[in-house]
Amino acid sequence: MIKVLVVGAGAVGAFYGSLLAKAGAEVSVVCRSDYAEVKRHGFSIDSQPLGRWNFTPAQVLKDVADFEGAADYILLCTKVVPGLDRAALIAPAVAENTAIVFIQNGVEIEQEMQDAFPDNEVISGLAFICCNRVSPGNIVHLAYGRLALGNLPNGVSRKTAQLCELFNQSGIKCNAGENIVTGRWQKCVWNAPFNPLSVLSGGLLTLDILQAQEVFVRGIMQEVCAIAAACGHPLSENTVNINIENTYAMPPYKTSMLLDYENGQPMETEVILGNAVRAAQRVGIAVPHMESVYALMKLRELKLGSPS
Amino acid sequence: MIKVLVVGAGAVGAFYGSLLAKAGAEVSVVCRSDYAEVKRHGFSIDSQPLGRWNFTPAQVLKDVADFEGAADYILLCTKVVPGLDRAALIAPAVAENTAIVFIQNGVEIEQEMQDAFPDNEVISGLAFICCNRVSPGNIVHLAYGRLALGNLPNGVSRKTAQLCELFNQSGIKCNAGENIVTGRWQKCVWNAPFNPLSVLSGGLLTLDILQAQEVFVRGIMQEVCAIAAACGHPLSENTVNINIENTYAMPPYKTSMLLDYENGQPMETEVILGNAVRAAQRVGIAVPHMESVYALMKLRELKLGSPS
Repeated sequence: MIKVLVVGAGAVGAFYGSLLAKAGAEVSVVCRSDYAEVKRHGFSIDSQPLGRWNFTPAQVLKDVADFEGAADYILLCTKVVPGLDRAALIAPAVAENTAIVFIQNGVEIEQEMQDAFPDNEVISGLAFICCNRVSPGNIVHLAYGRLALGNLPNGVSRKTAQLCELFNQSGIKCNAGENIVTGRWQKCVWNAPFNPLSVLSGGLLTLDILQAQEVFVRGIMQEVCAIAAACGHPLSENTVNINIENTYAMPPYKTSMLLDYENGQPMETEVILGNAVRAAQRVGIAVPHMESVYALMKLRELKLGSPS
Repeated sequence: MIKVLVVGAGAVGAFYGSLLAKAGAEVSVVCRSDYAEVKRHGFSIDSQPLGRWNFTPAQVLKDVADFEGAADYILLCTKVVPGLDRAALIAPAVAENTAIVFIQNGVEIEQEMQDAFPDNEVISGLAFICCNRVSPGNIVHLAYGRLALGNLPNGVSRKTAQLCELFNQSGIKCNAGENIVTGRWQKCVWNAPFNPLSVLSGGLLTLDILQAQEVFVRGIMQEVCAIAAACGHPLSENTVNINIENTYAMPPYKTSMLLDYENGQPMETEVILGNAVRAAQRVGIAVPHMESVYALMKLRELKLGSPS
């Protein structure tokens, strides 16, 4: 039986973990904040497209070091925020044949994992999903759900194909692709404008932002495309237009960064904006719109951290 | 006796009007929100550098049309916000020999007044002052206070020199200069970064903004200098450095835009940022940092105006 350990069982981790359990894997979870509730009752998943089900993990753990056995896959699904050492977090459970799969936001977050685990398969994952943890152990899956997987630095291994198949069996779409790093830049095209603008505007939904400031949104998207191309990951020419059209077609949406902001949680400013701006500086691309948005997010975070 | 009508007797209007009264002018005021209190008790001015005094206007009016007599000077001191027609506001009191003096924020706000009153002297004024209206009729003057005056399109008329002298007699510094339009761009170098960044950061003081994001602040300041130069108003080469140094030397300060924001008042986004960005577009200068900040202020205003 395939053994999976999910580290960071928030909405995304619990949802994808529960799908692998449905497909027959033995899935354990590490969850800190909701440990007591999950230990007692497991997870309840309420998915608009897929129905309702319960997910009882094989092991419910507070700490990665408590995991018993050898995981075939570790699914790392935490947010990526400063102060969290992703490699150190999972290291105690990484065995000889463990494939490390991170399903996380941001660009240029690959090298850290490849460096930390040079003898393991490292798989990068992108989740295109709208789901929320509504209370401890209760996950609501509102829409979408597609996963994109790929090995680092590139390619699709047997293990990646196997994981992909498990997800497809469970009812969501999962593609394995040759160039997952490019996919990560692709996703940043949308994240880089909408996540910070939703926060800096004071809470606007995606459609309001787009309708009011399409030129500005396009400006940021074009800068992300320019960085990606200069970093060796050219995106297709109509990327910006497609993202704009899709966002007009989507229901108005609260971004994940806005939800974090409203809930007083740390935001993924550094991996979504900071890493992209630093990549631009490294390759000598001017990204003044992104620099402005990044600077303003840092000021906003400074204010959040200050006494009054 | 020199007759002055102050239109918009908030902190700035009441303060400068009271100085002219001290210097011997007959000063009347139009004030809407604090009319009842000012009609009864006049103004009380509490100035840290100049002491305390009361100012009893010759006429206290709710409406410009009620002014009796012919003003030698109209001092227009309202905020400059969309929906306020500055020319129409003062028109009922503009007589043949009335000089129109506007002491207001923003760039490119001159032409409107020159067009509306082609047969009158139009004088542009810049106030470098830190003063607040703490309650109806009560003005606190915390620091600074210098005025810069100049005729439009340029030069210094006899009437401007006379007004300047009255202010100097009353205890504050007033300079009349040949190129007041350049002075307006000069002031925008400071306003364009600090006013919006204080709002978008969620309430940071000037020093916090500068310490955390000096490069970004300099980027905006340099863009203002570039627009000014392209519009025929080159600023001195060390303008940015001087503004940065002065801001480090100033006590940490809440900008006027932040105060308006906190008090639920309309902000001067359009005249400080919008007009500058439009000028840049007209003369073909790229100002991506200012465009970003302007777009974000518009989103923030959109959110403020929306139901939730």
